[in-house]
Amino acid sequence: MKKVTFLGGGSFGTALAILLANKGNIVNIYAREDSVVNDINNNRRNDKYIKGLCIPENVMAFTNLEEAVKDSDYVVLAVPSHVIRSLSASLKGKIRNSVPVVSIAKGIEQDTNLRLSQVIEEELPNPVVILSGPSHAEEVAFGIPTTVVTSSRDMMYAKDIQDLFMTNSFRVYTNEDLIGVEIGGAVKNIIALGAGVCDGIGYGDNSKAALMTRGMAEIVRIGMKLGGKPETFLGLTGMGDLIVTCTSKHSRNRRAGFSLGSRKTVEESINEVGMIVEGIKACKAFYELKEKLGVEMPITDVLYKILFQGEDPKKAVAHLMERGKKNEIY
Amino acid sequence: MKKVTFLGGGSFGTALAILLANKGNIVNIYAREDSVVNDINNNRRNDKYIKGLCIPENVMAFTNLEEAVKDSDYVVLAVPSHVIRSLSASLKGKIRNSVPVVSIAKGIEQDTNLRLSQVIEEELPNPVVILSGPSHAEEVAFGIPTTVVTSSRDMMYAKDIQDLFMTNSFRVYTNEDLIGVEIGGAVKNIIALGAGVCDGIGYGDNSKAALMTRGMAEIVRIGMKLGGKPETFLGLTGMGDLIVTCTSKHSRNRRAGFSLGSRKTVEESINEVGMIVEGIKACKAFYELKEKLGVEMPITDVLYKILFQGEDPKKAVAHLMERGKKNEIY
Repeated sequence: MKKVTFLGGGSFGTALAILLANKGNIVNIYAREDSVVNDINNNRRNDKYIKGLCIPENVMAFTNLEEAVKDSDYVVLAVPSHVIRSLSASLKGKIRNSVPVVSIAKGIEQDTNLRLSQVIEEELPNPVVILSGPSHAEEVAFGIPTTVVTSSRDMMYAKDIQDLFMTNSFRVYTNEDLIGVEIGGAVKNIIALGAGVCDGIGYGDNSKAALMTRGMAEIVRIGMKLGGKPETFLGLTGMGDLIVTCTSKHSRNRRAGFSLGSRKTVEESINEVGMIVEGIKACKAFYELKEKLGVEMPITDVLYKILFQGEDPKKAVAHLMERGKKNEIY
Repeated sequence: MKKVTFLGGGSFGTALAILLANKGNIVNIYAREDSVVNDINNNRRNDKYIKGLCIPENVMAFTNLEEAVKDSDYVVLAVPSHVIRSLSASLKGKIRNSVPVVSIAKGIEQDTNLRLSQVIEEELPNPVVILSGPSHAEEVAFGIPTTVVTSSRDMMYAKDIQDLFMTNSFRVYTNEDLIGVEIGGAVKNIIALGAGVCDGIGYGDNSKAALMTRGMAEIVRIGMKLGGKPETFLGLTGMGDLIVTCTSKHSRNRRAGFSLGSRKTVEESINEVGMIVEGIKACKAFYELKEKLGVEMPITDVLYKILFQGEDPKKAVAHLMERGKKNEIY
């Protein structure tokens, strides 16, 4: 029995908190919003982020960070990518240096273009583990079979986190390619925005499959340039996560893209989703990165133009789909 | 302006026939069923196979093969994989040796385990071109953006067919890896059956994405063993077609799998789809092939047990999803 603290009361964190609680661990959730903390502690629910759940009694929620992390064996950062640095910094001195810090966010840091494990390492001396893969919270919470991957600079910690989370329906694999795992998870959100735009415009399954295939090529190109391994991009945190994010009704990135494709503005699309849309931030970061590194990413280009330069989604995507005839291998 | 004859009056052949007719070609369709030929010639429709279409006047249907192929510049075999050999043989002496023969079927031949281009070459001296990719007929027919690939032993013919079919919304690429193109198209139907079983059981998007990712690994493993190139399996005829077949409501293979997962028998599942389910034949053929070649294909194994050995789909797939913990790279 371990004590695990989740920082952030969002949907995926809550789903994983329940999973660990059901395995007999003591689980704390730290959330800034009083309403979420009260809903968890008093009603055993978290209706704001994920409806229909019954949260076990061995999950306790806190609005005080220090109280929440006290004596924790593990800390899980369950916040959007742009909060990772400040939250990591605020943990300093509040947890022992040996406590593994797990991140379940997907993205890279704006401006620095650092992977999230690098951001955490800049702020904390603790071992860092990344947990990633095709794992919509709405399904994890209800015990639907899900597979994820853990990775770390020191695989001993990745294996420790594998054991912590593994159940019959939540299968955890390990992968030593930390760079590949993090980059795949970040870039797929951009492609999912594009897939959503396709759907919003009214294109079909053929069109979306083509876009996803070309999106996969983009993930492989930028990922390998950054030091990731091709077999990782073909695996759960690459192709697997790309598929689920581009096709599932649960995907926020796809839904935001759908709104864009349906002629809504960027602001309207973000508001409609009502939660953080990681793909928008990832698009900006990877657009800058690929310009600097000279990597071809035509889908990222198109999304950048739609999101930040006001280009018409329908025209931009039509242009992408109707590129000149050529050999398939790009 | 060319004269192109489609052998077979199914949905994809009809969609492509309309596409070529709209480009100004003279198009013949040969079909065995009087009702289909009459519907095309008299009502300008093919309601049995694809509803809601208006077939242009420059498409003519025939029940007589010799009449249909007379003076054709191109012949397109638009029939299921198991009919390819007998149909090719019946063309002997009826078309000039220089007429390119295009196959749009996806599968390999039972018992011989030959690719379809090899089967055609055994029966005819003509140049053979394969057209494949994520292209559900129901979307091609309505001009929804679609991308496909042509391949041939002599790429001159693949480029010729590229030009023949290319439009603004039907993008044709070429790929020299004929083996990879044919194997990818055949194996993905097995994985689509598996994806359908997942859906039928009531598993979620996370589960299906995991199955598709592991299915991709199976395609790459057997495909490379047979001489295909990994970049082809990552392209439109591999990953692209896998995605569309596993996720689209139009996919017969997925629908047959869905019925199996919903506790229907194999016969009931085939009858429900009402058309040929290529994945079932492909499963038998690739099961034999992988046994002979010693290639690991766990999803094909499971489907084989469900289809031919009466194993319970739910138990079999649950077993597949709950394999022991290990490193992700398989």
